[in-house]
Amino acid sequence: MNFQFYMPTRIIMGENCINNNAAAIAALGKKALIVTGKHSAENNGSLKDVTQVLEKNAQQYVLFNRVMSNPTIDCVYEGAQIAKDHGVDFIIAIGGGSPMDAAKSIALLASQEIARQDLFSGKYGDKVLPMAFIPTTAGTGSEVTQYSILTNDAAQTKTTVASPALFPNIAFLDGKYMDALGLTTTINTAVDALSHAVEGMLSNRASQLTDMIAAQSIGKIASCFESLKSGNISTKDRQNLLYGSTLAGMVIAHTGTTAVHSMGYSLTYFRDIDHGRANGLLLAEFLKLVKCQCPEKIQQILSLMGYENIEAFEEIMNALLGEKEKMTLEEVEKFASIAIKAKNISNCIVVPTQEDLLKIYKTVFSV
Amino acid sequence: MNFQFYMPTRIIMGENCINNNAAAIAALGKKALIVTGKHSAENNGSLKDVTQVLEKNAQQYVLFNRVMSNPTIDCVYEGAQIAKDHGVDFIIAIGGGSPMDAAKSIALLASQEIARQDLFSGKYGDKVLPMAFIPTTAGTGSEVTQYSILTNDAAQTKTTVASPALFPNIAFLDGKYMDALGLTTTINTAVDALSHAVEGMLSNRASQLTDMIAAQSIGKIASCFESLKSGNISTKDRQNLLYGSTLAGMVIAHTGTTAVHSMGYSLTYFRDIDHGRANGLLLAEFLKLVKCQCPEKIQQILSLMGYENIEAFEEIMNALLGEKEKMTLEEVEKFASIAIKAKNISNCIVVPTQEDLLKIYKTVFSV
Repeated sequence: MNFQFYMPTRIIMGENCINNNAAAIAALGKKALIVTGKHSAENNGSLKDVTQVLEKNAQQYVLFNRVMSNPTIDCVYEGAQIAKDHGVDFIIAIGGGSPMDAAKSIALLASQEIARQDLFSGKYGDKVLPMAFIPTTAGTGSEVTQYSILTNDAAQTKTTVASPALFPNIAFLDGKYMDALGLTTTINTAVDALSHAVEGMLSNRASQLTDMIAAQSIGKIASCFESLKSGNISTKDRQNLLYGSTLAGMVIAHTGTTAVHSMGYSLTYFRDIDHGRANGLLLAEFLKLVKCQCPEKIQQILSLMGYENIEAFEEIMNALLGEKEKMTLEEVEKFASIAIKAKNISNCIVVPTQEDLLKIYKTVFSV
Repeated sequence: MNFQFYMPTRIIMGENCINNNAAAIAALGKKALIVTGKHSAENNGSLKDVTQVLEKNAQQYVLFNRVMSNPTIDCVYEGAQIAKDHGVDFIIAIGGGSPMDAAKSIALLASQEIARQDLFSGKYGDKVLPMAFIPTTAGTGSEVTQYSILTNDAAQTKTTVASPALFPNIAFLDGKYMDALGLTTTINTAVDALSHAVEGMLSNRASQLTDMIAAQSIGKIASCFESLKSGNISTKDRQNLLYGSTLAGMVIAHTGTTAVHSMGYSLTYFRDIDHGRANGLLLAEFLKLVKCQCPEKIQQILSLMGYENIEAFEEIMNALLGEKEKMTLEEVEKFASIAIKAKNISNCIVVPTQEDLLKIYKTVFSV
């Protein structure tokens, strides 16, 4: 038995957990930069809950609400400059994966001078502003990982800033912020979380500890499949999806993701396909590839979801994700050639070749 | 769903993990206080592995090897004084629960002036020396908890110093240090760990996350019952016991223990019965008490161990623990009157009365 486990983020889950734990926020600092996307934090009530607690605590704050989907390097340098200009001493991130991922790089860049060409190098200290994260989608798990995933135009894909210093100090999990989340976003983020847990179980860095967490995550997310299909998503479903996605985040914090994510990044970068959807489109075909060499592991994953075979899983994914995008052969060849260079590719218990990746793309998109 | 989870200790498990992770120790400081018991760390090779890495890292160290079983308040103040006298800036604890528990209070008292009467008050800051912990028994789980449990003569029991600041920075888990551990100690510590996981599942502070960890812990420990009974303990058993006990530590870091521990403390304080053995003697009777109100939970725990009823579990406990101590009615009445005052008593999904506790003591010891 040989493994490491490190997940220093304090998880606080429950209805009104922000308001009920004002002291935990008070302990983070005097002046916050609130990092969000344009509208969602305002619409779902999370921003108001945060600012009310900050005001109650007599903490100041500055709002940086210009994080776009798939945040860029420019965006995080801009956020860090604002943090420095206003002398903030902690960060609160509210949102889906994009604001949370951006917030980590902002917390880093606000504390250290790091040149753009060194951002993905890992060659910097561990000084970083304290962070409290509030996920308002149940997908990325970023609230409990050390990853800040940014769009990297130089590499024409997403690249990860990773450091143990980037684990948020606190993750507040309150399902109520997802009550009004649209069905498509709910599905895409749920499928992203599922992909994390499944890929974590297929990672060659998996341990008995991460497999245990992944198994619970897969069960929780799969328990919501029928609700997601019908569009009738209960409060309990929301909690299960949020809890499941945080568990999946704990998994990939240790295992990383695998080829599914590497392949999905091309779909997002070049075709603007939502990140979770991209993973979901590819997942079943990837399971078929792994099954050839590791049938037991795939069977275990399927039974955690209550399925007997990959086809049954594929059916529910197709039902959830709907009609697939059209792709040309030229496109998918380019995607495969980029995806094969990703670090995550070698991370799987079955390491695919470029031909394998191309075959998956071709099968999924009927090219 | 309403819970908190916080376990910031970095777990590093594997053969030769200390030697293979010298950099992690190098990052802790310049001069270590090594806190151990008298002989075991020397005999099982762990002390040598630690000092070799420290020397390789050009880190200085001072040895404090005077921690007794069930460490006293005097002991931790003495250790803290030595830490201060020698200007150490981090702590390495090697041993079973006693050196590890003592080391946490030493790390605290070396960083802050805390008067004896305030030690159990929680009224102090979170300044504490960095800590690396090396368990050399598989029982207490202290390497992943925020508890420092000391003998408290004023209260005639054990009392807990608890603070989030007391989580060790690193836990090194290497089963090889237990290869030559005597059978009685192996059994007693395994039963202690089992008791942690079981009590964690019966705690009213349990969550789905702690239940998941407790379930894996119980399974791992129970998988070694037959080996413990026969005395043929394999390397794999050692790893399972160590992993299981660390998991159980992660559980009680969140749930606390329950009446079993409260009752066991009296057996240890007044009759010098080993801590793990004390819990093990009481566990089956306590399960019977809880079963009256929560039969499903008890059935779940039993099936994790592969048993159909409490009697089967009682049988293996009796086989492992051997002949029970003789007690007088006067003794057990005193024990029940002290145990009922413990904080842990109200921590269980079934809160026992003093009469319940007395009945358990009387049944267990045939008084």
